[in-house]
Formats: sequence, structure tokens, C-alpha cells
Amino acid sequence: MNTVQKWDLFELSAAGAQDGNPFTERTIFATFTGTCEQVTVNGFYDGNGIYRVRFMPSFEGEYTYVLDGTYGGGRQEGRFTVIPAGPGNHGPVHVAGEYHFAYADGTAYYPIGTTCYVWDLQSDARIAETLESLAASAFNKLRFCVFPKHYDYNLGEPRSYPYEGTPMDSSVLTKDNFMSYSFQKDGNAFDYTRFNPDHFRHIESCILALQRLGIEADLIMMHPYDRWGFATMTAEQDDLYWQYAIARFAAFRNVWWSLANEYDLFPTKTLSDWERYAGIICREDPYHHLRSIHNCRPFYDHTRPWITHCSIQRQDIYKSSELVNEWREKYHKPIVLDEIAYEGNIQHGWGNITAEEMTRRFWEAACRGGYPGHGETYMHPDGVLWWSHGGQLHGESWKRFRLLRDILSETPGLGLAPYEQCRWDEVCAVPECEFMHPVKSFYLYYYSFMRPSFRDFHFDDTTSFQVRVIDTWEMTVEDRGVYTGHFRTTLPGKPYMAVWITRQD
Amino acid sequence: MNTVQKWDLFELSAAGAQDGNPFTERTIFATFTGTCEQVTVNGFYDGNGIYRVRFMPSFEGEYTYVLDGTYGGGRQEGRFTVIPAGPGNHGPVHVAGEYHFAYADGTAYYPIGTTCYVWDLQSDARIAETLESLAASAFNKLRFCVFPKHYDYNLGEPRSYPYEGTPMDSSVLTKDNFMSYSFQKDGNAFDYTRFNPDHFRHIESCILALQRLGIEADLIMMHPYDRWGFATMTAEQDDLYWQYAIARFAAFRNVWWSLANEYDLFPTKTLSDWERYAGIICREDPYHHLRSIHNCRPFYDHTRPWITHCSIQRQDIYKSSELVNEWREKYHKPIVLDEIAYEGNIQHGWGNITAEEMTRRFWEAACRGGYPGHGETYMHPDGVLWWSHGGQLHGESWKRFRLLRDILSETPGLGLAPYEQCRWDEVCAVPECEFMHPVKSFYLYYYSFMRPSFRDFHFDDTTSFQVRVIDTWEMTVEDRGVYTGHFRTTLPGKPYMAVWITRQD
Repeated sequence: MNTVQKWDLFELSAAGAQDGNPFTERTIFATFTGTCEQVTVNGFYDGNGIYRVRFMPSFEGEYTYVLDGTYGGGRQEGRFTVIPAGPGNHGPVHVAGEYHFAYADGTAYYPIGTTCYVWDLQSDARIAETLESLAASAFNKLRFCVFPKHYDYNLGEPRSYPYEGTPMDSSVLTKDNFMSYSFQKDGNAFDYTRFNPDHFRHIESCILALQRLGIEADLIMMHPYDRWGFATMTAEQDDLYWQYAIARFAAFRNVWWSLANEYDLFPTKTLSDWERYAGIICREDPYHHLRSIHNCRPFYDHTRPWITHCSIQRQDIYKSSELVNEWREKYHKPIVLDEIAYEGNIQHGWGNITAEEMTRRFWEAACRGGYPGHGETYMHPDGVLWWSHGGQLHGESWKRFRLLRDILSETPGLGLAPYEQCRWDEVCAVPECEFMHPVKSFYLYYYSFMRPSFRDFHFDDTTSFQVRVIDTWEMTVEDRGVYTGHFRTTLPGKPYMAVWITRQD
Repeated sequence: MNTVQKWDLFELSAAGAQDGNPFTERTIFATFTGTCEQVTVNGFYDGNGIYRVRFMPSFEGEYTYVLDGTYGGGRQEGRFTVIPAGPGNHGPVHVAGEYHFAYADGTAYYPIGTTCYVWDLQSDARIAETLESLAASAFNKLRFCVFPKHYDYNLGEPRSYPYEGTPMDSSVLTKDNFMSYSFQKDGNAFDYTRFNPDHFRHIESCILALQRLGIEADLIMMHPYDRWGFATMTAEQDDLYWQYAIARFAAFRNVWWSLANEYDLFPTKTLSDWERYAGIICREDPYHHLRSIHNCRPFYDHTRPWITHCSIQRQDIYKSSELVNEWREKYHKPIVLDEIAYEGNIQHGWGNITAEEMTRRFWEAACRGGYPGHGETYMHPDGVLWWSHGGQLHGESWKRFRLLRDILSETPGLGLAPYEQCRWDEVCAVPECEFMHPVKSFYLYYYSFMRPSFRDFHFDDTTSFQVRVIDTWEMTVEDRGVYTGHFRTTLPGKPYMAVWITRQD
């Protein structure tokens, strides 16, 4: 029987023409009809005369389809049954409320992200190692690229290229001269109208491997770290790429669209280009996967309606997570801090903060109602840096994120909001959904690098609260008992402490 | 023979009338004439029928004086000799260049300040203990108050009051109710037109004790932590206070005028009051001692011509010293960070940063061409907190300042400037006086909480530089030898490191 789980990928394939350029000269599309939805999507040429159309059903029950196009294989019809989602399948993540996320089945989703820009383009062994590292971690979102990366610590060849053709000779590259090869096409012989299906199939296997681990694939669709011409294609070539990638990737439920990393570093793209790409995604992705665009220096205008959430790189060396409140008020969208510097010890200032500081930025962001992101840049004898290549985690901060994620999971509603009535000199989070409640059911005070030796609390005269003292660095949660009225909580006078106060009902 | 050192205090005293109110009804003044200067100053009534006039000569040689006034003792004349300044007497500190300080004899002065608001109003034993602590430290500036202080941890009685009269009963005060007694006069019976000369004489002994230790007395003339009415006197009473205090204190060479701590917290004073006080100082202090005014939240307009340097309290929990560059560019005056939070563990967020963070803020400020200030707020069984009472230093940051001061002392010229050509992700200081030099004689790179495991340097192809690696926390200076052209300096991959690179001529 032809069945597929709700929110799983349903694929049709058909043999068709191979002559000419099937990527540009042929079309294939299908309409999928169930009781609650009718969706028409474009398919894609997968090489060797095979065309495919992919669909992610959002409802259970009987579906029919009609496939057609100029691809050369004619019209086809059929039916299939969508069965209930299985364990671990919560559907795609969407924005829920103003500032938070939830899976399609209503389960709250608290992004705890990391970045491995081109982990997908490394060897099979390295990829397996990365997946093992992720499986042992609390990460549930990974940012990575479709195109290979040309940058410091990233001068080697990727496992494959997205287009047919041959790259420039990379043996000329050194740490000192590589920047001069950026954004040039000389020595490359790529046909930017003929995709390499193997490259995309491989990325799909990576998306799926992440999906099995419950990790969202925040796909960086374009980036400026390029020596192959992929960052400086023509508008027509760019649009072809977007259509092809969307046709291939959109039916994977864990895909997010990050239009670019550091959109402002592309030498030839203009704002109207980014707006045009956004239009293509909005038109071609029937599932409305999350859409964002990431800055180097100036933010993109995150008020643009197609942007579902702010994907932020910090603009200041000293303040990053601390600005979440301001950004929430400015954009009224979820604030995802996709780069707040990396734990590591490389020369670049964005890549050498301590594990303590990274953990601090995580708590600071979370307790202000935002979502922090991680990365690691430790020097490695073979040049394998998590930030780009994946592999093993060598740092200390990642071990501390599960505790934070566990506490977030106990938040009533979908997420945290900064508590406006706390003192100027401390950070406190309360449930977003309780903003009208004079006394909240949940207060999470975080003391950052400050280290009071005690704090006096008073919420009202009658409600009882359980008090727990959290050492966010040592990962201990100490139950201090139940208190009412005025009470004092002693603290050990060291940094990175939190006090978690929950109402006893 | 009647002699005084240059920049020492020369005092005339004369018996006069005691009837009525000598503080308001009598005058005394004198004109001092040497070869290079003629100065007329007002004197003051010191109680018990004694009037005094004080003068600080700025030149060596023979002086004459003429004393007169309505004080009741008639006109007097005389002469004295000003001899050369003795060891340790460099004269008063003034602004030198735009951003730095020097003593009158041209010696560079790098402020390394601390704050003990009312150390001067504690017991003799505590004062002696404070002086011992200061003598063992690298501090060369102390901020403290003329008026007693009413605040958290400061509810007791001072050793004396600046006016004749009696204070309210302080036995009613508790940690919870004390704020409600602020700015009220009930229960106090002070005559705000009759000073208590003992109070001022005692403060003078403290100023002199600091002078002997080479410490500048940054006198906080007014402050809002008050339950006695001193912060809410009439304009006439205020002006009388300024005239009296200037007549008494101005001839001490180590006096600085801080018009207020947290000027913006006074309930009744307006900007025109502060401007009027400034006018009195400018008119009555012939030595032009340094003048500043310190904020709680909004800065006073530091562009006002009477303000010699910016006395800044940080406005942001996360960024303080990091803003020195901006403030330099905005005000074109020396930037003195008189409050960047205190090392300690009290509940208040301004009083519980770590020694590491305080030390970091010191280096960060210094390497940006500013001058950091210290304070300590450690909980103490007897409520003795350095920040207010002096006593012993319990922290760890103060021990680290001598190294910084020693390195500052090796700067060519008068002070450091931020090196505009350093990378966005690091801080580097160069001598202010070498801003036109393409290759400097002195580079001080500071890595703050970042911890690169190496840095590559290149200044030019021919100059040789001595490289020293400084662990600012461990207080070690490691000589790495001499390098030319491109060179790499390895670092231990921990925070708080600096690299000190000096040209070998």
C-alpha cells in the first residue's frame, strides 16, 4: 500500500527526456489533493533521465495526485494514504505567537542552535563523526551551507560541487593570499545552468540524518565565501538555483531557509535581489518554512513581512545577547542569535571567547526571551574546526546547554519573556503567556558575571514559591525549599548563578 | 625665617571678632605678590576668634602679602620666601594636552583612582587603617565626600557634622526604611550658616595625609545621600558653603573639585545651580584645580568649558570602559571612569563584579586612552565596606594595578591613545604623542576576555621590536625577544593577556 506519514516526504519519480538542458528546458509539476489541502509544486531533474516531484502532506487521509509537464514522460495520476505522524515526528517548526516557535503539532520548540558551515561537504567519516557529536548534544538546530566555502581554515576542495564543471586549481592558495581569490571566476569552468544532482542528493541525506536526530536544518542558501563564481552568478542563474533547491528541499520538514550568511558582503547583489529571492521562496515553498537573512554588519530590515524571525549576528564585541530585549521591541519577531562569537582560540576576535562567556551569552539571551546559537573555533592540528567542518566538539559550553533546554521545557506556554519589573541590574525571565499576571508562576533570575552573595525577594504576601538555585556553569540545581512573603536567598558569591522561583499551586 | 616650599600651603592667621556670625558677617582676604604672580584670595573663620588666609605659591622667590578685611584684626603686611619643591612635591595636577594629566612640574600623572566615600568621617583607627591600605596600593587618587553619607550600609553617625547643630535621631533607621528619610530636614537642628571648623580641619588633615602618600584628593563637594538637609540647602547657604570650602581647601595642592556625585539625583538643584557653583569655583580658586561633575544616569554636559575632565559613571551594565574611545571623541577631554561598578558581592548590581572583571575594565580603559577607577563592596561582618568606609582591601583587583601603572609610566609622552589601525576585534594602545608616526615606539595590545592562541604582527619590514607577553591577571611579564617584519606571538589561549611591543632604537 502506498502510504506516507504526515509531514514526511512523499516523492514521485518519472523517466523523461535527457537531451538539451533538462534543468532549463523542461518542466515537471504535480498537484496533490487531500480532504484538507490541495498543493501544486514544481519538481526537478535529478540526472540520468529521472525527474522527481516531492510533497510533504500536512493532513492525514486519502490523497490523489496529477503529475504533468514538458519533461517528456507525460501525465500521470495516482493516489496514496497519509498515515499519522510517527514518534519524534512533530512536523515543521513555525513561529508561534510573536517571539517563539512551535512544531506543527503544537509542541513548543526552543532553538538551541550551532553552526558547522560546510560539515555536509566533508568526508563520510567526518560527517559520521559530526552526527555522533550532535547526537550527544542538546542542539536541535544546525546552520550549514549548500555551496562550498572559501575562507580562512577553508581552502581545501569540497567533496562535490553544486554545478557541472571543474574548479580552479586550489594549490595556489595560502592563508595570506586566499582573500585575493574571492569573488573571481578565473580558472573555474562551471556551467551555472546545469546542476550536479549528486551534490544535492548528498545534502538531502544530511538533512535527513539531522531530521532523525530531531535537528532542524537551517540551510544557508547563499554565502560570500566563494572562489568559484557561485556568489556572483547572474540573476537568471540565481533564480534557477532557488527554484531547483526549493523543488528538492522544501518537502523535508526540518528545512529552514536562511537566504544568506552575511548578505551584506556580496559584491554584486542588491536589496532587490534578496527581495526577489524571497519572492521565489514565498511562491514556490507551499509549506512556508521559516525564512531569515543573516548579516555581517548592518541588519537586513527584519520588519520585511517575508522574514519570519531575526537571524542575528552580533554587531558589538561586548554586547550581544544583552540586546535581545531591544530587538524584540523593534521587530516583534523571534530573536535568534545565530552568531554571538564562537568559543575557541583562533586569532579572529569572533572566534576566541571562553566557554564561560559562551554559556553566559546563552543564558543571557534565553532569559531575555531570545534564542542563542553556538559555534566552536578551537585550533586543531588537522585544521578541523567545528564551526566549519563539524567533527568533534572540543569546548565546554555545549555540555551546559541541556540544562538550559530542560528548564526552557518547563516554561508554561511557548517561551520566556524578559520580566519588565525586575531591577535594572539583573535579568529575569517569566513566561511570555503570563505577561498580564501580577504574580507569575515562573521566575528565572540570572546573575550573569555579577555575583551577589544574597538576594531579597518579595512577590506578594500569600503565594508560596519553590526556590531553586542553579549554578549554570557547574550544572547543579539546588532545591532551597518553599517560601512566602519576604524571603532571602543566599548565593555563593560567584558568577553564572541563577535563581529559579516557581509558584506552588 | 619665614619659608614655604613651592606648591605647599602658606597660611596667615589673625585674631578677630567673635560676635554675631563671623561666617557671614565678616571678611578676610589677602594679596600675595611674588616676581611671577600676584594672587588675591579670601580667607575664612576657623572658630574661637581665629581667621585664616591660605595661599599656594607657584613660583620660587620672595613674596610679600597684604591681609585685610572686616574681620576685626585690621590690615597686616609681611613677606616670606618660597623655596624649591622638596622630594615628592610635583605640584598640583592639571590637564596636559587634550586627554591626559601632568603635575605642575611636568611629570606625567596617570590616575589610578579608588573611592571611599566617607573614609574621612570614620574613627581615627579606621582612618589609619585606610591610609595603611592606600600606602600599600598603587592608588594615586581618592574620591571622598565633605558631607556625611546616608545610604545602604551608611546609616550610622559620622564623626562630626559640617555645621553647628544636632542631627535627627538615627536609631529609627533600618535597611528597609532609610530611603524614606532622604532629603528631609525634620528632627535636624543645624544652622546652615555656621560651619563646624573641627569638621573641616579634620578633612584637611585627611587631605594632607593623602598628599604625603602622593594621592590626589578628589573631593566630592555635594552628594544626594542625605538625611540632614545638606543636600537641600538654599542657594545662599550653598554659595556660602562653596566659598568657605574653597577658602579652606584650595591651597592644598592635591585637591580636585568634584562638584557632585550623581548630580542628577538631587531633588531641588537645577542646572543653573551647578553652573553657579562652577562660577564660584572658577572665581575663588586661583590655582584652577581640576573640576568635574559625576552622573548617576545622564551625563552632565561635559563640553561645558569649566569642566576640565569627564568624571564618568558607567550607564550600561555591560559596556563601560569599552566606550572610552567614543567619549574621547565626543568631549576632547580626559576620560576618568570614576565608577565602572565595584568589585564585591553585595546585592546591588553596581557592587558585585569579580576582581577579574574589574581588572579587565582597568586595562580596557587604559588601553583606550582613559583612566579607570576602582571601588570595593565586599560584605563585611561589621558593615565596613571599602567603597564607603575605607579600612582594609579584601579584593584581588587592586593588587594588579601597580603593573598597569608601571607600564603606563613607560609610555613616551603623557599617556596612551587608542590605535586607530588595530583590528575591530582587539584593543591596542599607542603613545598619544606619536599619533602622526607611521611606526610607533610602543604598542600595547590587550585581549580582554578574548583568548587568541596566537597573533600575527607586521609593522614594517625593517624595524626591530621587543615583544613582551603580559598576563595581566597573574602579573607576569615574559620577554619573548626581538622581532622584525612578519612575526607570530604565541599566547596561552586564556583571557586577560596583553602583548607589549616596543621599538628597539
